[in-house]
Amino acid sequence: MTTLIGIDPGLAATGYGVVAFDGTRFRHVAHGVLRTTPESELPERLSQIYDGILKVLDDFRPVEAGVEELYFARNVASAIPVAHARGVIVLALGQRGIPAGFYQPQQVKQAVIGRGRAEKGQVQRLVAVLLGLDEVPSPDHAADALAVAVCHCQRARLDVQQPVG
Amino acid sequence: MTTLIGIDPGLAATGYGVVAFDGTRFRHVAHGVLRTTPESELPERLSQIYDGILKVLDDFRPVEAGVEELYFARNVASAIPVAHARGVIVLALGQRGIPAGFYQPQQVKQAVIGRGRAEKGQVQRLVAVLLGLDEVPSPDHAADALAVAVCHCQRARLDVQQPVG
Repeated sequence: MTTLIGIDPGLAATGYGVVAFDGTRFRHVAHGVLRTTPESELPERLSQIYDGILKVLDDFRPVEAGVEELYFARNVASAIPVAHARGVIVLALGQRGIPAGFYQPQQVKQAVIGRGRAEKGQVQRLVAVLLGLDEVPSPDHAADALAVAVCHCQRARLDVQQPVG
Repeated sequence: MTTLIGIDPGLAATGYGVVAFDGTRFRHVAHGVLRTTPESELPERLSQIYDGILKVLDDFRPVEAGVEELYFARNVASAIPVAHARGVIVLALGQRGIPAGFYQPQQVKQAVIGRGRAEKGQVQRLVAVLLGLDEVPSPDHAADALAVAVCHCQRARLDVQQPVG
């Protein structure tokens, strides 16, 4: 099986989810959240996220990554801290040579549940079923990250089965 | 004299300007631009910016940094690539233990020329005069970065002369 990671970037909380995939079935490997506090300065917070994600990559050695894309519709003030975190996460992936796919929330829902407008809770429950978990993983950021990982597996598979262009 | 760096982050072009400051007078040390091309993937571009800024920091050993802040009024689609670049730059400053001040364009103008609504060209000419340069540095991103460096010197000086709070 191939190990993949999904990442839901955030300055205060970055979720990650590691799954194994054999082209058909999934296996849950790990999930968690990297947290930083607003009491720390931005350079310190970005260092914590960068060091934290490198440790996760080195612990689980995923060969590919799915990263949640930013809503362009979201307001700028809330998007910028997420983009700062996302920058250092994408840097870490690049430095470890891990190819990454970028997915908007709607694409994640579409890949997991077949509809872009599904409820978040519904997506999380389906992810739990796909991964053979008895309950929905928590917290939300980690569950979202697992969904992105599943999405990346699905998209990679779709790319193989239905090459486009 | 103390060496400081100003940085104007951008994904396609990150300007930097290094100045020396003795509390009253400025001396120009260096300026330049780190460029990446849209043909490269995001992880590669962010790695280039990160490696490039670390090299500049290691070459010139600034003890403090001024970094241009993002316009919150700007639209999200254009702000996000800048924020990605800014994330890896702030990470690099944090890793080298260089304290950073963050300044919005209006604060830079205010610090350099005394008015927040000054024209960009006017600010650049005044920066050139302050740094003893015969002409306005180019390209724009490098000139902007030098202005941020001057702003950080001025603000640091103001903090010393007029402690607030």
